[in-house]
Amino acid sequence: MTDPQTLYQELIARVSKATLLQSCGSVLSWDRETYMPVDGNDHRANQLSLLAGVAHQWATDSRIGELLDQLIDSELADAPDSDSTVNIREIGRTYRRARKLPQRLVEELFRVTALAQHHWAEARKTGDFNGFAPWLSQIISLKQEEAAAIGFSDDGEPYDALLDEYEPGASSADVAEVFDALRNQLVPLLDAIHGAERQPDTSLLSRHYPVAEQAELGRRAAETIGFDFRRGRLDVTTHPFCSGFGPGDCRLTTRYDESFFSSAFFGTLHESGHGMYEQGLPDEVFGTPLGSSVSLGIHESQARLWENLVGRSRSFWEHFFPSVQKIFSQALSETSLDDFHFAINAVNPSFIRVEADEVTYNLHIMLRFDLERELMSGALKPFDLPEAWNTRFTSDFGITPANHSEGCLQDVHWSAGLLGYFPTYTLGNMYAAQFFDSAAEQIGDLPSLFASGDFAPLLAWLRQNIHQHGQRFSAGRLVEVVTGNPLSTQPLIDQLNTRFRPLYGV
Amino acid sequence: MTDPQTLYQELIARVSKATLLQSCGSVLSWDRETYMPVDGNDHRANQLSLLAGVAHQWATDSRIGELLDQLIDSELADAPDSDSTVNIREIGRTYRRARKLPQRLVEELFRVTALAQHHWAEARKTGDFNGFAPWLSQIISLKQEEAAAIGFSDDGEPYDALLDEYEPGASSADVAEVFDALRNQLVPLLDAIHGAERQPDTSLLSRHYPVAEQAELGRRAAETIGFDFRRGRLDVTTHPFCSGFGPGDCRLTTRYDESFFSSAFFGTLHESGHGMYEQGLPDEVFGTPLGSSVSLGIHESQARLWENLVGRSRSFWEHFFPSVQKIFSQALSETSLDDFHFAINAVNPSFIRVEADEVTYNLHIMLRFDLERELMSGALKPFDLPEAWNTRFTSDFGITPANHSEGCLQDVHWSAGLLGYFPTYTLGNMYAAQFFDSAAEQIGDLPSLFASGDFAPLLAWLRQNIHQHGQRFSAGRLVEVVTGNPLSTQPLIDQLNTRFRPLYGV
Repeated sequence: MTDPQTLYQELIARVSKATLLQSCGSVLSWDRETYMPVDGNDHRANQLSLLAGVAHQWATDSRIGELLDQLIDSELADAPDSDSTVNIREIGRTYRRARKLPQRLVEELFRVTALAQHHWAEARKTGDFNGFAPWLSQIISLKQEEAAAIGFSDDGEPYDALLDEYEPGASSADVAEVFDALRNQLVPLLDAIHGAERQPDTSLLSRHYPVAEQAELGRRAAETIGFDFRRGRLDVTTHPFCSGFGPGDCRLTTRYDESFFSSAFFGTLHESGHGMYEQGLPDEVFGTPLGSSVSLGIHESQARLWENLVGRSRSFWEHFFPSVQKIFSQALSETSLDDFHFAINAVNPSFIRVEADEVTYNLHIMLRFDLERELMSGALKPFDLPEAWNTRFTSDFGITPANHSEGCLQDVHWSAGLLGYFPTYTLGNMYAAQFFDSAAEQIGDLPSLFASGDFAPLLAWLRQNIHQHGQRFSAGRLVEVVTGNPLSTQPLIDQLNTRFRPLYGV
Repeated sequence: MTDPQTLYQELIARVSKATLLQSCGSVLSWDRETYMPVDGNDHRANQLSLLAGVAHQWATDSRIGELLDQLIDSELADAPDSDSTVNIREIGRTYRRARKLPQRLVEELFRVTALAQHHWAEARKTGDFNGFAPWLSQIISLKQEEAAAIGFSDDGEPYDALLDEYEPGASSADVAEVFDALRNQLVPLLDAIHGAERQPDTSLLSRHYPVAEQAELGRRAAETIGFDFRRGRLDVTTHPFCSGFGPGDCRLTTRYDESFFSSAFFGTLHESGHGMYEQGLPDEVFGTPLGSSVSLGIHESQARLWENLVGRSRSFWEHFFPSVQKIFSQALSETSLDDFHFAINAVNPSFIRVEADEVTYNLHIMLRFDLERELMSGALKPFDLPEAWNTRFTSDFGITPANHSEGCLQDVHWSAGLLGYFPTYTLGNMYAAQFFDSAAEQIGDLPSLFASGDFAPLLAWLRQNIHQHGQRFSAGRLVEVVTGNPLSTQPLIDQLNTRFRPLYGV
């Protein structure tokens, strides 16, 4: 009998090596979105498909199953929340899931999505859904195959199998229930805001904001809240994202619109929130569950917390507004802090999810969640997506997209095969609100700190309570450990009411 | 018995897969030099070491040896210069070489050089050789180990084993002989130039050349001579290079000095020459010898041809000078075409190889060639390099580097483990001169074409006669096939005399 410690070390070495190879793929994916020349796409697809295939092979090597079988009853797996128990638990979960996916399907998904993203980007430019539809069709088929291979409970649905990848333990029915509850509380708030006499002047955000100055400001803001540029970068892409390559290297991207202030600025804060989570994961256990993020919902909570709960607060702007006003003196010299703060918190139905306000944002997610479930169940055919999107959008928001670029083509996710991903955004909003309440309670006067430009105590709290744990706790348990309560819609709803009702005087 | 065609297809599939994985490493190496944040270096070293190790494993899989053994006597290997014969011949050569290197040594070399390049870059900034010396020492030891593993003939030396990787078939003794012959013919030309009454005003190249305009001009020049930006990019690095990732994706880099025109402009032409060779290799056989460059010497010939034989010709500037004068009107409005052309062809001893003129350039190479041989034989200790460099430099050039950044720390090569690489630069100059003579003879009036901005006939000729062949011919045979003669120092010497004596009136 080999001793458990030796077996455990082999397990960790194997899993870390697979993660290291995956992280090479992250570099290639990042380059594809940022700097790759247009004709490099086919070769890049071949490269990514090879890396994904080999990483999958390594991560699903039956030797890992043997090691897990031998370790599961050892003393290394019997102390809940201990390093080795956590790693064995989470490696086992991922391994079992991955073993269900045939190598061929994994490679095919990588190949198709690499090409599809290219066609999506073209289609998004022209608004021509038909150029993308055949790719979406292929992707849905492959994801249905994936869901069938993963499996789901008898009273479940194919979508559950996908959701579980991003938010382990969540089910479609549970999410649907939470979303319904949220919707019921959002609609009255929205109605009140819609009927308010006081409305912000959002036109001030659409004045002339030169790109170079926006880039400089965004970088400075990211640095001020705590993103470490020695360990990361900020670049430009069509669709903003954050990709943590591993210790010391985390890449953020954003996009600039010289006629709209909010897009790049809040996008940068958002991705910085993701990036600070990545930078806060413990380096020394890179490649293992203890060095990895918990779930997409928790990841998103870090982004939304910095973007909205910090970045749209009045105290944040008490610190930043004077210098922003100076940088964009042409646009903002006559604007007051109050008017600016009201404008960046404007609530209005709009077409683009990533530019939506905090109140309607969750309706964008619910729409995608419902359409995804239908695409996966087969109730909605990919070619019928534009009509379904526009119908639902009109009913939820009272406005109709003028073209598909501001409709069903706006997001990169489906072209990248990321179905089941969208609901984690709204879960992230809920986690963020609940975490933020606890942070405020434990740290003390956050608004004063923000107003003086001091964001370090909040970041230290997040590092201490969330980042450093990696996957030690599941998302659900993490919320309980950190906040003392299970996840609830209440903190989010309370915060939205507390912040938006006074602004609009309703 | 499996039929040879099936065996051959398996061979090609295996080799292509290894090359595809290597090409992933090229992306990561490029990113390390261009955009990687400083603290990403250790993780990047781990990633590159993994990729190199696995690619080496695949490329040296004993199954490849079995396939080669079965194919070598088949009809697929018996028609010289046929596709399959060439691939079997060249795969065999590379395989036998690679099999001699222990996996451990390959991984160690990648790991150490990844870190060493980082320390070299730091040392180069400060001029502190001692910060880099321990790394150089490690690298020399590893390269000696490599040379011993590869082996060399009884009357040869360790350096032969390294040289053979970059210029297959060349030996140190042969190269030394050619270099001596060249030196004997260069010295009288240099003496004549040194004693000339007419001297160029090179100060005009050190006026103010704003970086943004240089970048725009460099890009336009690269495009005009034929580098395809749909299939490539141009970025900024400390040490310029060209890296072909594969079909449709070739990356060039350069560096800008706003007080020196030549560095970026001719550097960009140089790397574009490399890049156009990469872009001219046949895409459909990527990953096999037929889709790969012949040797570093041949690669360099393409770079030097465009940089010098085209880019420093008077006719080239008849086309470009008017627009360059307009772009840099502050610097060049009072300058004549003749004075500009004389200045960019100034011959002067100088410290930096990549900025050296065409006549002294080869002396820079000979110095490195001799020091490398001594480092490899053990006659020169790595810690004694600075003194040896400065002594030899002073003797050859009559000037002494003021610091190691403009002395033995100037080049990236040794930190990257590239010993045996430098001589290919001078071989490249010789190949370039000989190819250019043939092109001029076969195409006709090249100067008139250049003067009218038409570089397409020359590029087409290079594509047809050199690029499209991949490794069909060895370097030596390629020269004979293309020019009708074996490689000789004469075309280079003749061209230098024909071009520089009239300029200097000697």
